[in-house]
Amino acid sequence: MKNIYIIGVGLIGGSLAIDIKKKHPEMVIHGISRKEATLDEALALGLIDRKATLDDLIHADLVIISIPVDATVKLLPTILDKIPDTGLVVDAGSTKEAICKAVENHPKRRNFLAMHPIAGTEHSGPSAAIGGLFEGKTNIVCEVEKTTFKLQEKALELFTGIGMRIRYMNPVAHDKHIAYVSHLSHISSFMLGKTVIEKEKNERDIFDMAGSGFASTVRLAKSSPEMWTPIFKQNKENVIETLEEYIDNLTQFKELMKADDFDAIFNEMKDTNYIKEILKGIK
Amino acid sequence: MKNIYIIGVGLIGGSLAIDIKKKHPEMVIHGISRKEATLDEALALGLIDRKATLDDLIHADLVIISIPVDATVKLLPTILDKIPDTGLVVDAGSTKEAICKAVENHPKRRNFLAMHPIAGTEHSGPSAAIGGLFEGKTNIVCEVEKTTFKLQEKALELFTGIGMRIRYMNPVAHDKHIAYVSHLSHISSFMLGKTVIEKEKNERDIFDMAGSGFASTVRLAKSSPEMWTPIFKQNKENVIETLEEYIDNLTQFKELMKADDFDAIFNEMKDTNYIKEILKGIK
Repeated sequence: MKNIYIIGVGLIGGSLAIDIKKKHPEMVIHGISRKEATLDEALALGLIDRKATLDDLIHADLVIISIPVDATVKLLPTILDKIPDTGLVVDAGSTKEAICKAVENHPKRRNFLAMHPIAGTEHSGPSAAIGGLFEGKTNIVCEVEKTTFKLQEKALELFTGIGMRIRYMNPVAHDKHIAYVSHLSHISSFMLGKTVIEKEKNERDIFDMAGSGFASTVRLAKSSPEMWTPIFKQNKENVIETLEEYIDNLTQFKELMKADDFDAIFNEMKDTNYIKEILKGIK
Repeated sequence: MKNIYIIGVGLIGGSLAIDIKKKHPEMVIHGISRKEATLDEALALGLIDRKATLDDLIHADLVIISIPVDATVKLLPTILDKIPDTGLVVDAGSTKEAICKAVENHPKRRNFLAMHPIAGTEHSGPSAAIGGLFEGKTNIVCEVEKTTFKLQEKALELFTGIGMRIRYMNPVAHDKHIAYVSHLSHISSFMLGKTVIEKEKNERDIFDMAGSGFASTVRLAKSSPEMWTPIFKQNKENVIETLEEYIDNLTQFKELMKADDFDAIFNEMKDTNYIKEILKGIK
């Protein structure tokens, strides 16, 4: 592989560019974006070697799509149309069902590999790109059997080469489970931020009282609405289900408090301390 | 000040011991605990110089109480009874109204300073103690006017000396605001952990999908139920109010999703991105 085209050179696309270039200095990283300013920034930051457009994709060995998931659904068929028969397209979206469905009957379906690298920060744009973001992280691959074996191999070599471990999953299961371990966290964080801002916005001094615990819990509320709105839209049914369960648990906690049943409150927390075991493997 | 007695040598008490000893090697740190094993551990870790009991408090220049807030309410009058007239008692509890009330008519009220150092981690016990925990953090002092001026001075010198900035507040306002910026975060995190564990406990592989965002949001669910149950009990009315507002906001978000009003979802997140400004000052 020589010519890599990255569509969307923000947090994920830009960070992939850094790691791939470091590992493979011989590869040429081309950047594509709707906004010229984004490409200029990515070029100035050294994330990409060249600016490109969709019409250049005929030269692509690999295309990485890292744009909002609604834009991916719209653009993916066109991208597949434009690449050569030997080219591979991967995406990095946080939803998988709608994206896989968008190209299920595309004549070049076997040139596409659906991925979700579980990595990121709460920041966005080219300046958010950092090296080493994917080291030790999980990359979920969906419908691997639908991709040409040789292209699978190339992709897996590239992504394990920058430190990722690969897990295989079907798109429906991916979207269901990711709603719990990622999408719900974002909403809980956004609504925590909202609740506190609404109450305290006229009392800036109050935030002197906020410590690292609050900062950690509300961190994801800094995330990009441009990225997250289409994720919630595409994963609507699953996300609503997680939200209902979360609201039920919060309501039950509140009712236990109202009833002064602090033994039960203690047990709720004690049982949930089990999260320590779960988090051990997560960086 | 020479003889410092720390009652409860866990995360907070132990971390204070480290910083105070580093700054003032001449001071002698005495540890007091209900559990002999805790004192042995604190001694082995070098957090304290000596083990002590409540009856030794007649020799105290300073007593620091860092135990669950219900135990503080019960023990504080006895501690004040036992210290010399020149001694100072401070507490480090996350609630202030009940603690201040417990000694409002105590003959040695002027020997007590109510404090809340806003610092911590999700870990507990002597082994959780770390140096530098209080550097740059806020220490809320309540009812400062009720403490003898000379003792106030000593305490403030000690706590600013280990890097804390002091903020003054009345206990009622403290408990109201801390419910938003600390207590609610703990419940949102515990219930997020509960929701995910309930759903995924038989599918350990799922947690391969959890990334740093989930880890950050759920981190406080590792916290000690022994510490947190009495906090929620003492601050019941305020915490229930924050929970109701939080549940309302989550429910509204869910309803917007159900109604496919993703423009409103976008705006909710965009508005809450304002949290970036708020978090700038928090380490």
